[in-house]
Amino acid sequence: MDCKFAQALEWQVGYSPDKSKAPSKFVPAQVPGAVQLDIAKAEKYPPYEYADNYKMFLWMEDRFYTYLSSFKKPVLEEFERVFFFSKGIDYEFEIYLNDKFIHQQEGMFTYVDIDITDFLKEENVLKIIVHPVPKMVKEPTDRSQAAHVVKPAVSYGWDWHPRLVPLGIWDETGLMVRNRSHLTDIYVSYELNNSLDKAFIQLQGEGRNVKGLTYSWTLKDQSGSTVLTQKGEIAADLFTGNPIVFDNPALWFPHDHGMPYLYTSHFELHDRSGNVIDAKSQKTGFKRVRLVMNEGAWKEPSTFPKTRSVPPAQFEINGKRIFVKGSNWVNPEIFFGTITRERYEELIDLAIGLNFNIFRVWGGSIINKESFHELCDERGILVWEDFPLACNNYPDDPHYLKILRQEATSIIKRLRQHPSTALWCGGNELFNDWSRMTDQSLPLRLLNSLCLELNPTIPFNATAPIMGMGHGHYLFVDFDGKTEVYKTINNARFTAYTEFGMPGMSPVEVLKKIIPAKDLFPPRDHTAWRDHHAYGAWVGDTWLSLNDIESYFGKAPNLETLVQQSQLLQSQGYKAIYEEARRQKPYCAMAINWCYNEPWAAAVNNSILAYPNIKKPAYDTISASCRPVLASARFSKFQWNEGEDFFADIYVLNDTFKEVPSLKISVKLKPAKGEEVIMKWESPVAEPNTNVAGPTVRFRLPYWEATDRFEVILDVEGHSEYSSSYILLYKPAFRANEGTRVLNM
Amino acid sequence: MDCKFAQALEWQVGYSPDKSKAPSKFVPAQVPGAVQLDIAKAEKYPPYEYADNYKMFLWMEDRFYTYLSSFKKPVLEEFERVFFFSKGIDYEFEIYLNDKFIHQQEGMFTYVDIDITDFLKEENVLKIIVHPVPKMVKEPTDRSQAAHVVKPAVSYGWDWHPRLVPLGIWDETGLMVRNRSHLTDIYVSYELNNSLDKAFIQLQGEGRNVKGLTYSWTLKDQSGSTVLTQKGEIAADLFTGNPIVFDNPALWFPHDHGMPYLYTSHFELHDRSGNVIDAKSQKTGFKRVRLVMNEGAWKEPSTFPKTRSVPPAQFEINGKRIFVKGSNWVNPEIFFGTITRERYEELIDLAIGLNFNIFRVWGGSIINKESFHELCDERGILVWEDFPLACNNYPDDPHYLKILRQEATSIIKRLRQHPSTALWCGGNELFNDWSRMTDQSLPLRLLNSLCLELNPTIPFNATAPIMGMGHGHYLFVDFDGKTEVYKTINNARFTAYTEFGMPGMSPVEVLKKIIPAKDLFPPRDHTAWRDHHAYGAWVGDTWLSLNDIESYFGKAPNLETLVQQSQLLQSQGYKAIYEEARRQKPYCAMAINWCYNEPWAAAVNNSILAYPNIKKPAYDTISASCRPVLASARFSKFQWNEGEDFFADIYVLNDTFKEVPSLKISVKLKPAKGEEVIMKWESPVAEPNTNVAGPTVRFRLPYWEATDRFEVILDVEGHSEYSSSYILLYKPAFRANEGTRVLNM
Repeated sequence: MDCKFAQALEWQVGYSPDKSKAPSKFVPAQVPGAVQLDIAKAEKYPPYEYADNYKMFLWMEDRFYTYLSSFKKPVLEEFERVFFFSKGIDYEFEIYLNDKFIHQQEGMFTYVDIDITDFLKEENVLKIIVHPVPKMVKEPTDRSQAAHVVKPAVSYGWDWHPRLVPLGIWDETGLMVRNRSHLTDIYVSYELNNSLDKAFIQLQGEGRNVKGLTYSWTLKDQSGSTVLTQKGEIAADLFTGNPIVFDNPALWFPHDHGMPYLYTSHFELHDRSGNVIDAKSQKTGFKRVRLVMNEGAWKEPSTFPKTRSVPPAQFEINGKRIFVKGSNWVNPEIFFGTITRERYEELIDLAIGLNFNIFRVWGGSIINKESFHELCDERGILVWEDFPLACNNYPDDPHYLKILRQEATSIIKRLRQHPSTALWCGGNELFNDWSRMTDQSLPLRLLNSLCLELNPTIPFNATAPIMGMGHGHYLFVDFDGKTEVYKTINNARFTAYTEFGMPGMSPVEVLKKIIPAKDLFPPRDHTAWRDHHAYGAWVGDTWLSLNDIESYFGKAPNLETLVQQSQLLQSQGYKAIYEEARRQKPYCAMAINWCYNEPWAAAVNNSILAYPNIKKPAYDTISASCRPVLASARFSKFQWNEGEDFFADIYVLNDTFKEVPSLKISVKLKPAKGEEVIMKWESPVAEPNTNVAGPTVRFRLPYWEATDRFEVILDVEGHSEYSSSYILLYKPAFRANEGTRVLNM
Repeated sequence: MDCKFAQALEWQVGYSPDKSKAPSKFVPAQVPGAVQLDIAKAEKYPPYEYADNYKMFLWMEDRFYTYLSSFKKPVLEEFERVFFFSKGIDYEFEIYLNDKFIHQQEGMFTYVDIDITDFLKEENVLKIIVHPVPKMVKEPTDRSQAAHVVKPAVSYGWDWHPRLVPLGIWDETGLMVRNRSHLTDIYVSYELNNSLDKAFIQLQGEGRNVKGLTYSWTLKDQSGSTVLTQKGEIAADLFTGNPIVFDNPALWFPHDHGMPYLYTSHFELHDRSGNVIDAKSQKTGFKRVRLVMNEGAWKEPSTFPKTRSVPPAQFEINGKRIFVKGSNWVNPEIFFGTITRERYEELIDLAIGLNFNIFRVWGGSIINKESFHELCDERGILVWEDFPLACNNYPDDPHYLKILRQEATSIIKRLRQHPSTALWCGGNELFNDWSRMTDQSLPLRLLNSLCLELNPTIPFNATAPIMGMGHGHYLFVDFDGKTEVYKTINNARFTAYTEFGMPGMSPVEVLKKIIPAKDLFPPRDHTAWRDHHAYGAWVGDTWLSLNDIESYFGKAPNLETLVQQSQLLQSQGYKAIYEEARRQKPYCAMAINWCYNEPWAAAVNNSILAYPNIKKPAYDTISASCRPVLASARFSKFQWNEGEDFFADIYVLNDTFKEVPSLKISVKLKPAKGEEVIMKWESPVAEPNTNVAGPTVRFRLPYWEATDRFEVILDVEGHSEYSSSYILLYKPAFRANEGTRVLNM
């Protein structure tokens, strides 16, 4: 949807306890934005991200908000009409023009597009009344209050998100002047043939008063050459073009398996004299995506009584079975109205640096603005899109189903246009104990049905995890205080790991911005550390997990050391999981961690990036683990003892569709001083998209002086780009004359 | 749909190798029936059920069939029209009247209903050309040829069904004279409130030329009293009545949990003068059915990484979580056109005698005629209805999807009217290796979507088994030659056992009708035994499993003894599974065996009834195992040795919603002579719908003379209706002076 705003609108906002009462005062409003930010700015609130300041915003949940904007009637040609247009108003609202009611809506993802011409005066006042935060139940004040709305559940509070529920105009909004005959949507629908050398295209258009008019359409390639054209007459406001066969389309690939090739579709609407009276340009691309059965999965189950085989969790893109590596994307801002294209761009570019090829847009969060999807199209990142349902039992209630149908229809019709869209998913963890939806839940049957109707070429899953797909673990050491991530992941067998986390502290400079200086060290519960998810966030002493850190390193002498220790566990833990998931290929086909980014600065979080876009050290280790080709080692544990037989399984991982030649790999152990070469291995050729399982190295650990850790290096001769490095802990045997060991970084 | 045929039609049928060529001769045709039966009768074929005679029918697959019927134009009032009406023509066909093309259809479940008035002459010839058996592939000649049609896959050959693929007119067919304004469908749609004391009814009607007419509707209870009425005007040919609230409806229950209460709906169409010009009467009933989570299932999985919890497999009927006991229903005749209401009735009444409350109408088979569903409504048997997809990979092909949409729509609109309809299911074993459909398969997404649209109050499963649901085993002894049914089922943990089988031979008198006398004993492969599924049917030496029989009993001296041995394994094996499934309640909620009946006489089959309706001995043991209340014993194996400690776990099973008082149970072992009372147990009270796990009895087995088996009797004092009895084998220690033991029944 191209937004050509005729007139910038200036907005003010005010609040009142009930709808019938007008606000007593108005303050300037940022649009798009959120009412809370406008109030906070006007009333000079301290930043909500510091300490527990966010609690000052809580009263704002239960107010009615009135946006006002005054404007002069635009100068119109006879054939022109004025529209009030908004890409998103959150969540339930009514619109009045000059005190005349013109629209009511529940739902933040359905565009508002109203012809207001007939209600215009010379001077006009547009008024939008936004209702308070919807709450299904009064208590408890948590995500369960959102179980009846198509609005991000995360805003109601999560283990990494404070309770802050945005309201207000959150996407582009303004007045549009258009010809009375105009376009509202053009969809270049297509299906590829089996050999992928023909696209069967059919244009699907929507407009107003376009019946009987004509159109011309062109498709241009990246060099700007026109490769297809079509002209036609429009039969009705909902219209389709004649089928077109496009021979040998350049296919859109995720960036690591080809080029994310984009074409430009340009559609022009002509009046009866042949003049162009409206046009829509948009990028499009051609790909075929399927979820196919994971290799070996049909053979299971093998005994009687026999249940079903697992559902498929292997992406096939344009005929290639690719291993997807990526992360769960959450809204990058608490007040998502403030998200800009630039904000998306910096985050998406960082994902390319991680060698990621997929984002799962997590269901607790928003459906992102258009620029997110445009950037994923351009950069070549697949998008797995959850509908906005998460960790709740969304009901079979007729009103909820009606709003869900409206919102899902808007979402599907917008996102199906993007070549990056690769999977629809009903929402997050809906088939688990804490949500208690089932395959019989009507909201999920409805979503399946709408996706089938509107976008049948893209796969649909009811939720994640589905059978055979794993979520978790989210800790370096399990609740039992001893089972480490190495053992958990090495013993697991799943078709896809679509959430797994490792907590890591934010950098010290971030912590200093959110935790009062007096509370910075040592971290304690019931301080700003708790408000920022270090304590009481999930199970046990999450997310700081101080017990686990201290069990490896003892008490840290200062904040800097503690942060380094926490970040070391995060980076090595993530490395263990990403690489083991890849080693489990081809049965396993996805490694998607929890989570990528965060919408405010948490003190500790599973995220790879600290708010807004600061790399934690895990960034570099994950980037290395996700290289298309690398030498990789599987470990059984983190801490090793002097005199013990150290062992590790050596692999060559190959996610490319090229053969990797024989590699000369030296396995080295490197303590503080010197290094030991413990094996040289000449790997066999790795077939395309196939790993090679190599030998298990074994080496009795000697006494190393003054070191509490060692590096394991897989040095690839002549191919340092495939070399890998891991850090493990080392514990020398107790020697009476040495006294207490001091553990330092 | 009431069929008021104005005129009986006499039919003839002929065949030719291609459509353009008229048949060279015609023979009388039975309608409804099948073209094969007409040809066979005319050409005096021997019975297809004897030996391998069915092979004589195979050539008929590849012919075109022409049905002819001549009739005089009926005398018509000015306002009357003549319709050609058929409830089912199998499978692809064209209809001509006086050589004028009037209709073409693919699909045997969609009614044909064509106004032929304008084409009528005084003397008329109706011609129906039926196409050859559809085959997706030429080879292999098995069920995979049916992977593109909405036609029973079983006809193409199965492990208990010969290759015989019916064609032709298979349900009621004739001419109807109707007012030009008439009704085609009346659906009493309703939803019950949570407390089940209000039904929100909305009439949904379809007619032709009914716009602007009026109607009156009454609902009568079983005593004939009118409990509801409505009058209204009809707004269009597709119309709905105003909502009606029905207070305190008597609910429809399966027979073992209440009354299958039926109301009578009577809808009258009035012309503008108020005369009744059409009417529809039908039974209806009110129930709420849900699949809810099995008890304890939300707690799983309990470790990380964590996949989803199982889908629900617990029926809740009118708020009661009931354990369903029943069987897989297959078409009772190979040529299903010959099935009559009486044939259904005898089979359904036998199921009541088995204490069954559910049939799974298996997806390899037909959608049954109306009388099947009427009888299930009346007798109070739940119907789990598979769509006609089984053990194939039905494709995402546009043509198949179009026919599936048409047929499924017809099926849903017909069966949703029946209170017995309790579950829609996409088809049989589609998510297993031998079928290879997945959650992404468009046919299953389409069926889910159509059921949601047309019948959202009934649950839908994509297939059986779903996750957590078990199919199999189908043998007394596993393929390893040692693991018995007792161990397999005792070690299993499933939410529902929706297929499990035990092969048992047909009675001797049946065998004599199908196997030539010279081949009767001993059974050998590559004789009529193979044609009747004793050899080469499924895996291993199924279904006769002679090795297993002989490993228990040695070589049988005659056919009678062999049949008894086979039937003993079947009856005891079934008893073990039905009762263990019930003992696993509440986690387990279904026990539905494979299979109930058979469409021709198999020599050996898992069926409880031999064709057409002959009880095998398993009938009585299963009936006992499915009593609402019984004393039950769990065994670990079939054969016990002298000197060994016999043991068994004793239970009281209660599927009623009443408390079962304390019972005095004597556990007795009864060899050929005498009996041993090995325990007396006074059971605690069994709460409603709750089992009681009792003690494990132990007893060292003595030497028993002249016996190779013993009975285990659970004798319930004063309640012989709860007493149970099992048969186990006994093996005395070898005594040199005894010589060879002779094992007899």
